[in-house]
Amino acid sequence: MSRFRLPRRPQPGEVFDVVIVGGGPAGLSAALYAARFSLRVLVISETIGGTLNEAGIIDDYIGIPEIPGPQLARRFEEHVARYGVPIVVGKVVNVVKEGDTFRVVLQDSTTYLGRALIVAVGSVRRKLGVPGEDRLAGKGVTYCAPCDAPMFRGKEVAVVGGGNAALQGALLVASYASKVYLIHRRDSFRAFPVYVDLVKGNPRIELVLNSVVTEIGGEERVEWIRVRNVATGEERVIKVSGVVVEIGSEPPREFLAKLGLELDEYGYVVVRPGQLTNVEGVFAAGDCTGGPYKRKFDQVVTAVAEGAIAAYSAYEYLIKRSTGAPAKPPSWSE
Amino acid sequence: MSRFRLPRRPQPGEVFDVVIVGGGPAGLSAALYAARFSLRVLVISETIGGTLNEAGIIDDYIGIPEIPGPQLARRFEEHVARYGVPIVVGKVVNVVKEGDTFRVVLQDSTTYLGRALIVAVGSVRRKLGVPGEDRLAGKGVTYCAPCDAPMFRGKEVAVVGGGNAALQGALLVASYASKVYLIHRRDSFRAFPVYVDLVKGNPRIELVLNSVVTEIGGEERVEWIRVRNVATGEERVIKVSGVVVEIGSEPPREFLAKLGLELDEYGYVVVRPGQLTNVEGVFAAGDCTGGPYKRKFDQVVTAVAEGAIAAYSAYEYLIKRSTGAPAKPPSWSE
Repeated sequence: MSRFRLPRRPQPGEVFDVVIVGGGPAGLSAALYAARFSLRVLVISETIGGTLNEAGIIDDYIGIPEIPGPQLARRFEEHVARYGVPIVVGKVVNVVKEGDTFRVVLQDSTTYLGRALIVAVGSVRRKLGVPGEDRLAGKGVTYCAPCDAPMFRGKEVAVVGGGNAALQGALLVASYASKVYLIHRRDSFRAFPVYVDLVKGNPRIELVLNSVVTEIGGEERVEWIRVRNVATGEERVIKVSGVVVEIGSEPPREFLAKLGLELDEYGYVVVRPGQLTNVEGVFAAGDCTGGPYKRKFDQVVTAVAEGAIAAYSAYEYLIKRSTGAPAKPPSWSE
Repeated sequence: MSRFRLPRRPQPGEVFDVVIVGGGPAGLSAALYAARFSLRVLVISETIGGTLNEAGIIDDYIGIPEIPGPQLARRFEEHVARYGVPIVVGKVVNVVKEGDTFRVVLQDSTTYLGRALIVAVGSVRRKLGVPGEDRLAGKGVTYCAPCDAPMFRGKEVAVVGGGNAALQGALLVASYASKVYLIHRRDSFRAFPVYVDLVKGNPRIELVLNSVVTEIGGEERVEWIRVRNVATGEERVIKVSGVVVEIGSEPPREFLAKLGLELDEYGYVVVRPGQLTNVEGVFAAGDCTGGPYKRKFDQVVTAVAEGAIAAYSAYEYLIKRSTGAPAKPPSWSE
């Protein structure tokens, strides 16, 4: 059942069964499943691979050990390409519901239409915004403690942040690292007391409070950070092999609210079981999702699973809508 | 960060942080994540790979195109083995909660203890129980329409069953196959009217009602089925390249109810967001789970994601319980 097909060049104004906005793990998995459901599908994304492109070595996608993030992104892309799914690289600035159809508008005003919509726009990890951070991203600088903690076995590492994710991250990294500097700009944490107690009681974790990282240095990989005490103004250099930045993340909001999607207090799209949203015909998957039914644990495998489920729900939605019309859902794979 | 380690031979009576019952995609993914969380983890399972071992070609695990199910099972197993996780092959007959600990009892009376438990025992697809079925499983006989529909492009295929899964399966297969025989033992369907209408209106689907499959034949792969009309007693042979059996599935119930786990009307373990169950310290993942928060779409990727989330929840549960005790969760990986 090899099915290498050249993706058709999508025509502006063309109508697809499903338009998927976002080409990270969630969006690409949704595309694979939608194609397998014989749906006519289009992916629109600023990048192909999403956050995978910024990741270092990934060892938690079971079946593919120790693969660099960008390589995993290429594998996902190649798998989807086998199904002939077209991918338009571009930025979506607006989505308008017109009757039963969604008009998806790109920055250059190109428009595509979808009978269903899957939102998989990811989220953006907040960065420190200091010199060296971008250059050493994936080379010791990471924004995901659970993803990269095992990389720091026996090393000295800085964890930056003061919320639950940072404290939980510090505890996890400390189970691998020889020493963890937990750097927080305030003098107290905004986190569950249990995590605060555990962090304070952990002999491998040194608290560096009232302090901010002002620079990350190193040749090929992270070697040191510069830290400034905001109370005294003092600066010092700490030797570390890694910097785990856990200061939150937020999804891009541009068109989400305009479309009338319900967002949670952090700006994530509220999803119900089946990756349904409050807008009929719109499904959401991956890091951009939240709400009470979602367990926030944004991993490659969870994004991929949510993408698959979103495609399944979109398929069901379309097939139920198609009663009266030709029984077979429209397919351009034939 | 290569971490090839020999798994320690687990000692009967030994206490683990997490005992995972089930070694399919959900259980193995939970094991990978639990190990990455520095938890001391044991997997107990009758088979390693679960339903993957019975699958044909899998093309919906994004990143690994067109792989035979058993080969994917080996890749999962090898990935987990890199973390030194011990796997005991055996049948769990009972789990008893003793205070904060779970005593897991195997058929041969061997016992292991877990501070947390992850239930990932899968479910058993109901079979037709006819000659040729087992021999040709994965060779044209399949129990999962969404998994295998694309394999039947241009072919003639039988779909067996009369519920939503069967009708939805027939519609999906008909979007690939040249002809679908929908075989159902009654003269009406127990499914949503929309699916019944769509199936009846689809020119590629021929209804074969009041009929049961009595034999599946073929040399290397499925070539024909024998069908008996239960009203008239007449038998006929239909040439098909595939048989999609969609007559339901059920999880093994042995120890689930004894442990006090809430089950849904079909016998699946009711899970809440985070893969929590009604019993504190017990998490569940994969095909054995159900309930209102679960979207029933049992794929490799969904099982793997639920396993990862269950491990995360188990980790959080253990770390919160460990306050007052040494801050670092016990780990045998050092």
